[in-house]
Amino acid sequence: MSISTIEWEDGRIKLIDQTLLPNEFKQIFCDDLPTIWEAIKSLRVRGAPAIGIAGALGAVLGIWNSTATTYDTFASELKSATDYLATSRPTAVNLFWALDRMTKTAEENRDLPISELKKTLLAEAEEIIEEDKAMCRAIGQHGMALLNENDTILTHCNAGGLATSDYGTALAVMFSAHEAGKQIQVYADETRPLLQGARLTTWELMQAGIDVTLICDNMAAQVMKEGKIQCVIVGADRIAANGDTANKIGTYNVAILAQAHEIPFYVAAPTSTLDYALASGDEIPIEQRSAEEVTEGFGKVTAPKGVKVYSPAFDVTPASLVTAIITEKGVAHPPFTESLGALKDE
Amino acid sequence: MSISTIEWEDGRIKLIDQTLLPNEFKQIFCDDLPTIWEAIKSLRVRGAPAIGIAGALGAVLGIWNSTATTYDTFASELKSATDYLATSRPTAVNLFWALDRMTKTAEENRDLPISELKKTLLAEAEEIIEEDKAMCRAIGQHGMALLNENDTILTHCNAGGLATSDYGTALAVMFSAHEAGKQIQVYADETRPLLQGARLTTWELMQAGIDVTLICDNMAAQVMKEGKIQCVIVGADRIAANGDTANKIGTYNVAILAQAHEIPFYVAAPTSTLDYALASGDEIPIEQRSAEEVTEGFGKVTAPKGVKVYSPAFDVTPASLVTAIITEKGVAHPPFTESLGALKDE
Repeated sequence: MSISTIEWEDGRIKLIDQTLLPNEFKQIFCDDLPTIWEAIKSLRVRGAPAIGIAGALGAVLGIWNSTATTYDTFASELKSATDYLATSRPTAVNLFWALDRMTKTAEENRDLPISELKKTLLAEAEEIIEEDKAMCRAIGQHGMALLNENDTILTHCNAGGLATSDYGTALAVMFSAHEAGKQIQVYADETRPLLQGARLTTWELMQAGIDVTLICDNMAAQVMKEGKIQCVIVGADRIAANGDTANKIGTYNVAILAQAHEIPFYVAAPTSTLDYALASGDEIPIEQRSAEEVTEGFGKVTAPKGVKVYSPAFDVTPASLVTAIITEKGVAHPPFTESLGALKDE
Repeated sequence: MSISTIEWEDGRIKLIDQTLLPNEFKQIFCDDLPTIWEAIKSLRVRGAPAIGIAGALGAVLGIWNSTATTYDTFASELKSATDYLATSRPTAVNLFWALDRMTKTAEENRDLPISELKKTLLAEAEEIIEEDKAMCRAIGQHGMALLNENDTILTHCNAGGLATSDYGTALAVMFSAHEAGKQIQVYADETRPLLQGARLTTWELMQAGIDVTLICDNMAAQVMKEGKIQCVIVGADRIAANGDTANKIGTYNVAILAQAHEIPFYVAAPTSTLDYALASGDEIPIEQRSAEEVTEGFGKVTAPKGVKVYSPAFDVTPASLVTAIITEKGVAHPPFTESLGALKDE
């Protein structure tokens, strides 16, 4: 994206408030820790890579105006900031990874003057952003090779620029193909309950001038049956060593439909999403979301008061339904235990 | 249901405005053809059997205040009414079936005085309602034999009392089982875009004291994977001679998921839904709905302005995914061309 999802500007964090999209495009400034904490908590900034960046920049914010004169005081201020930020989205792995990396950077540079240490931490956060951008571009390049001229792609949820610092993961493939002059079209699942597909994916693709059509999640099978879809590309929240993929609820649904219609199903994700410690997806815990997201998702109550609701936030698509996994290091094909294992060794 | 979904009262049609449920229970009156046409078109009354009844009562409304003195004039007024009503919803075969039946009744009684003919047509519409009630009960009885103690059933959209004059079709099976003392539980797909599952099915089942859990459409695969569902029961808008079934968009989606998880997939529908003139579902026209139902479903815009939307109102589930079709005359098993053909001959 030409406008940054989240960035550092003049001693504060500037980010797109994604809760207002697509009705309003507004960048907000976070001057203090409670403001960035609230922005993460209430999904003003969202998507695993973007949350990691918010954490890293939040850590900088926590010490930017520090008047500490000793490293110990400075370190205790940093710890207090990172501990606080860690409570914003307790399930987001990238958040802890980024906070950890900031803490380590401080320790490794403890002998620097405090003023230099601040700059080093900011440089580290910006390095995380640069790495994220490079990751997005590499996924886009590897993925676009899988697309043919005039392909129509179905995607689910938002694995776009708004979820990262730049091009996204699943959407990076589409942005790269479009930029390279390939003719492509996209169908976007609206993605209930929080409608990230309707609100964010369509918005990003329209901004880029890519032909996108919005559908309800339950229309995907019909659209496939009509021959409209040549491949599915989705992001991932966590991928087990065998290729089982946890992603936004409804992804497993789409994967079954793709197989039934003999349509390739691709997962696009950075290798940081790979969790080699998990032999299979059975071990991935599934977060439950609140009933209100389903019963009052449109700002109006649309179900009887007191109705029971079951709302898993994620599902796990078994590796057997995944055609290939597109990473920044290349495209992994089945059997994934071998192909993903090879990426680890690089 | 103890309160009629739709009925004739003092020279006009009284119906529950289903667009207001579950927040508001309100019965409205239709005094003229444009009002009942609009009520069908905008889903104030919906569900194949209920639309048939709305058509039959609408035909009566069209001639109720006729001042015709000859049968030919009367018949031309009736034709003008039925032609107009037929344009309200193109996919529901029950509408055409009911309008046809009213036309035939008029022709068969053309020698009656006009005042008597009006009463005869009203009696025919009320006979359709009575037959519908008997149909619901019979479907319930035949269908409940397919359920085991403690089964959990997944249903899509609303094929309940609100879709008929009484017990519904798919939901009739659940009401009958519950009334007979069987322990059952239900998962209801919310059914985007108009949320008939969230608004109507949960409401009806809760009213009846049946244990129901609401999910978003894209969660059905995950719920099945967790072993929570023992069978799927849905209604139908039109069934071809070979068993191909047109029903609310998303039904085909659920049928694929059911097959992937080896879960029986049942269609519950009256024989009036059978369209023997159609060899297969390929010939069933699919109504397209407006973009606004997807982008601003409930008073709040949730997608970018000008986004393209594809919104088929129905899909066609191929007979190969249907385990059995539950009708008021009994349960039809594959091959359906034979078993449904046998029902026609009875």
